[in-house]
Amino acid sequence: MDGKRIDGKAIAKRIEEEVASDVARLRAAGTEPRLVSLALDEEDPSFASYLRAREAACRRVAIRSDVETVPSASGERGFLEALDRLGADASVHAILLKLPLPAGFSEERIFSRIEPEKDVEGHHPLNAGLLALGRPRFAPCTALAVLEILAAEGIALAGKHAVILGRSRVVGAPLAALLLRKGTDATVTVCHSRTGDLARFARQADLLVAAVGRPEFVPGDWVRPGAVVVDVGTHSVPDPSSAKGWRLAGDVRFDEAEAACSRITPVPGGVGPVTTAVLLRATARAAGGAR
Amino acid sequence: MDGKRIDGKAIAKRIEEEVASDVARLRAAGTEPRLVSLALDEEDPSFASYLRAREAACRRVAIRSDVETVPSASGERGFLEALDRLGADASVHAILLKLPLPAGFSEERIFSRIEPEKDVEGHHPLNAGLLALGRPRFAPCTALAVLEILAAEGIALAGKHAVILGRSRVVGAPLAALLLRKGTDATVTVCHSRTGDLARFARQADLLVAAVGRPEFVPGDWVRPGAVVVDVGTHSVPDPSSAKGWRLAGDVRFDEAEAACSRITPVPGGVGPVTTAVLLRATARAAGGAR
Repeated sequence: MDGKRIDGKAIAKRIEEEVASDVARLRAAGTEPRLVSLALDEEDPSFASYLRAREAACRRVAIRSDVETVPSASGERGFLEALDRLGADASVHAILLKLPLPAGFSEERIFSRIEPEKDVEGHHPLNAGLLALGRPRFAPCTALAVLEILAAEGIALAGKHAVILGRSRVVGAPLAALLLRKGTDATVTVCHSRTGDLARFARQADLLVAAVGRPEFVPGDWVRPGAVVVDVGTHSVPDPSSAKGWRLAGDVRFDEAEAACSRITPVPGGVGPVTTAVLLRATARAAGGAR
Repeated sequence: MDGKRIDGKAIAKRIEEEVASDVARLRAAGTEPRLVSLALDEEDPSFASYLRAREAACRRVAIRSDVETVPSASGERGFLEALDRLGADASVHAILLKLPLPAGFSEERIFSRIEPEKDVEGHHPLNAGLLALGRPRFAPCTALAVLEILAAEGIALAGKHAVILGRSRVVGAPLAALLLRKGTDATVTVCHSRTGDLARFARQADLLVAAVGRPEFVPGDWVRPGAVVVDVGTHSVPDPSSAKGWRLAGDVRFDEAEAACSRITPVPGGVGPVTTAVLLRATARAAGGAR
């Protein structure tokens, strides 16, 4: 394997080993860590495939994983009531939502209704605030995964310039807060769709994080020679040369960026598996695990 | 007055006029907006002088302002109990703390104990989270004051680069969140004491915000020609040429920066009065005022 490519699967595996040992301890003490995903009963093949991957990961570390479905006909109110039930159910330690929420549902109302102690994705304003104040409890797992990758690779950021392309509530914004914290100490620039000249900022980055949500949006000549590139995007793009007719791609043109960078996360096999592992760890923590 | 200098007092006056009219409406409807500052009974001349200025501002807009003192001997526990009393007292709409907190007091415990609906400085994690999620309720008044100044001066930031020197919980971090919001749309860089080369970042700024906490730290040659400079610092520095022996100074070397910039906030008379006006507005809102 190319020495520049960061092996997200290997990092995830190490985290999962820690989580498995925490879960074993919890189970020995009589607690069965349990993650519940809440979704409408509408058909959604992409969610089903996501759930399968996540349930396999839960099985590997012996976390119980269920899906609770709410009848579409009961609408947002039914969804909120289900959140209340899960919040009150002592056998449930972690609650996960499928994003984006169904059309017409209020993120504001729904996120505020997740029991903060079970909010493993850090959606609740209280958890977003603890993160903003520099003492995160639960934070968006994708943003945490970027930090895990940097730590695993021994990439120190003090005095370095991190440029984040994307200001989303689930990646760009929380990642900026995490990178700015004392102890991490990056200088952080957040760019977005209204930024005048993305290339100018990207080219200054010691750490370039692409969280744009557009396949292969970042060309290689935006990567400063020697920069570290973390690609948060996952998209399926048409590929006639593949038997399936498609392949997975990130937000970065991988081959071009790989030539310029010092280290890069591939898609698939980069941020994705680490994000899942971080979710497992948050679930173990919510169930009373130590780490 | 020099055309480059932003007149913070005039901006504050316009805000106070709005607040006075909101307060008059509230009083006509039977509500007396009331702000309570909580402090230990220890002697602190700087706080007394700050309180006098703030109480004068409250009088101008007919907000009731009190100071509740807690005996030092009762410690953090007494302080927390006082917060509980103020939170439960329906005649109190807004609670203000003196920062920094007394040595040994836990910001974490104290900020989490302020009734969020009365937390006009946005200290509570819930309010910090609502800000981080892009729907601020109460936010640190100094950060809001910077936005007020930009709006009052008609300075649009979409596609512009804002560079914030300082990552503090009360200025730098919340200001970054405010500037990044949709509708404001700045590209934002946050620098701090661990940033390798502050000058390099400062010189790229269309908007340079100095929130360093060190008097006259930013030299004029850090200011890009034509940039807007907002100076958040307030320090008293020795000045033998003054009858008092001292003068007020900001984080920026004003004369040097004024030569290079297009607009600049002076110290005093810049961010300070607007911050006070923003606090008055937050108090009126907490009491049920409309804006």
